[in-house]
Amino acid sequence: MMNIDVALIFADRIGVFVFALSGGIAAVRKEMDLFGVVVLAFLPAVGGGTLRDIILDQPVFWLDDTISLWLAAAGGLAAFFLHKAIEAFRPLRWADAVGLALFAVSGAAKAAELGHGFLIILIMGVMTATAGGLIRDVVANRDPLLLKEDIYATAALLGAAVYAGLTALGIASSYAFAAGFAAALILRGLAIIFHLSLPKPRL
Amino acid sequence: MMNIDVALIFADRIGVFVFALSGGIAAVRKEMDLFGVVVLAFLPAVGGGTLRDIILDQPVFWLDDTISLWLAAAGGLAAFFLHKAIEAFRPLRWADAVGLALFAVSGAAKAAELGHGFLIILIMGVMTATAGGLIRDVVANRDPLLLKEDIYATAALLGAAVYAGLTALGIASSYAFAAGFAAALILRGLAIIFHLSLPKPRL
Amino acid sequence: MMNIDVALIFADRIGVFVFALSGGIAAVRKEMDLFGVVVLAFLPAVGGGTLRDIILDQPVFWLDDTISLWLAAAGGLAAFFLHKAIEAFRPLRWADAVGLALFAVSGAAKAAELGHGFLIILIMGVMTATAGGLIRDVVANRDPLLLKEDIYATAALLGAAVYAGLTALGIASSYAFAAGFAAALILRGLAIIFHLSLPKPRL
Repeated sequence: MMNIDVALIFADRIGVFVFALSGGIAAVRKEMDLFGVVVLAFLPAVGGGTLRDIILDQPVFWLDDTISLWLAAAGGLAAFFLHKAIEAFRPLRWADAVGLALFAVSGAAKAAELGHGFLIILIMGVMTATAGGLIRDVVANRDPLLLKEDIYATAALLGAAVYAGLTALGIASSYAFAAGFAAALILRGLAIIFHLSLPKPRL
Repeated sequence: MMNIDVALIFADRIGVFVFALSGGIAAVRKEMDLFGVVVLAFLPAVGGGTLRDIILDQPVFWLDDTISLWLAAAGGLAAFFLHKAIEAFRPLRWADAVGLALFAVSGAAKAAELGHGFLIILIMGVMTATAGGLIRDVVANRDPLLLKEDIYATAALLGAAVYAGLTALGIASSYAFAAGFAAALILRGLAIIFHLSLPKPRL
Repeated sequence: MMNIDVALIFADRIGVFVFALSGGIAAVRKEMDLFGVVVLAFLPAVGGGTLRDIILDQPVFWLDDTISLWLAAAGGLAAFFLHKAIEAFRPLRWADAVGLALFAVSGAAKAAELGHGFLIILIMGVMTATAGGLIRDVVANRDPLLLKEDIYATAALLGAAVYAGLTALGIASSYAFAAGFAAALILRGLAIIFHLSLPKPRL
């Protein structure tokens, strides 16, 4: 069984790069310049984890983990120069689903390690996975996709809940981590394949 | 005279739920899905207090007060399922005025208890009462109502100023709290009844 | 050679007032009321430094430096009453360039004094100089100018890099500060005079 710390680092690496691509692509569509593309790459890549760490009163993770920052910048540059190829690359949303699932469980694990209860663990999982994308859309001045379409945040919620539930039952953290990751990824995958959505209010 | 701590908790409870309704209704109007409605309910309900606590370097209040979170979620669900009834319920803006007045004074009191001066007390009162609503409008991608219409933030400013002024004069905190609350509520009430607005720049 | 602490305070003073004018003018154009104009003056004036301090886990600078707050409020009031004269005052963008250069180097210096590495110093310089203006545009619900036009953030990046590079070479902090300030101001000045821009992605 892989060590939980290694899994957390691995989660950050994949998630950061793929999420950075999503920000960079959004900036390219808005015809931002090179600086704007890199800034919008940073927002989804590290925004959720930054907000999580500030609210949990922990050191912001990228102050001592500059690899995340380089990966975010690399994602932005890749989006700037290769956006056509990236947008045509359909497996990208599967990579995004991996990042979503990993961020959700790593955020939940960080809250759990600090001794917080079930509700806070759920919120931190969802926040780590989705707040950066929300900030990206707000800064790009478009309606947040997250809040309108798709089973996306719900998959993060499921992953965090599975993790929190299993650790509460005494399951080892590394197994709970793997199960939460798998649950989030499967739900997100089903949503992509079958175009699942949450209900909307009846107007 | 009711205990100041009880008054602060009471302020959070009413304010959180009514402010959550305002966020949920904004999300329904934007045709967001269930998750979006709940997220937009959280922003005004706990956003101002979260920002206040982060800037004052205090533990974010809802980490140890999950009742606020459940009330915010309940407000979001109520907006999702009952938005027609809620929008037709005219007393709602009076409940919102109560929340505004209570948040302003509780935010001011928190800054005062930490030993901050008059200007910081005012800013924290206004921030606690209005920043969440501002974030709600920014995320919903609409022009912030707060900044364009109505005597709203000004009522929060008055409430915080009355609280800070009276405590500076040596009045007991609980009396100052009540007076500040009353002042904010009366000014906001007059603005609702007589459609008062702040001046706009001459273009 | 002027003391570095005095230079830092001086940087805050000029930058805060001129940046506040930019926020106030943006609010006037959006036809916000008096409160909205003052709030939008605060965002660029102290927003970048606030975000820097929160991420670096330092006390937010304006809690103990209320002069910055009064200057920000004064900038907002000036924009409200004198916006026509201010907008016609062409030297204003030169004053803005001074603020940009000073904020970039003071933000970089704060990160450096805390012992952070090169990349974090750069990010904090750019963030201090530009994040407040970005938040201003997001709250005013317009596309962020920063991310689309002009050599602006790039000048902040250069100033922070010169400061960080020279101090790494063992140059005294006050000389590095002056050199970084000059580098940022010159690049920004050239961009204003020659209408320089960063490249945009080829769509």
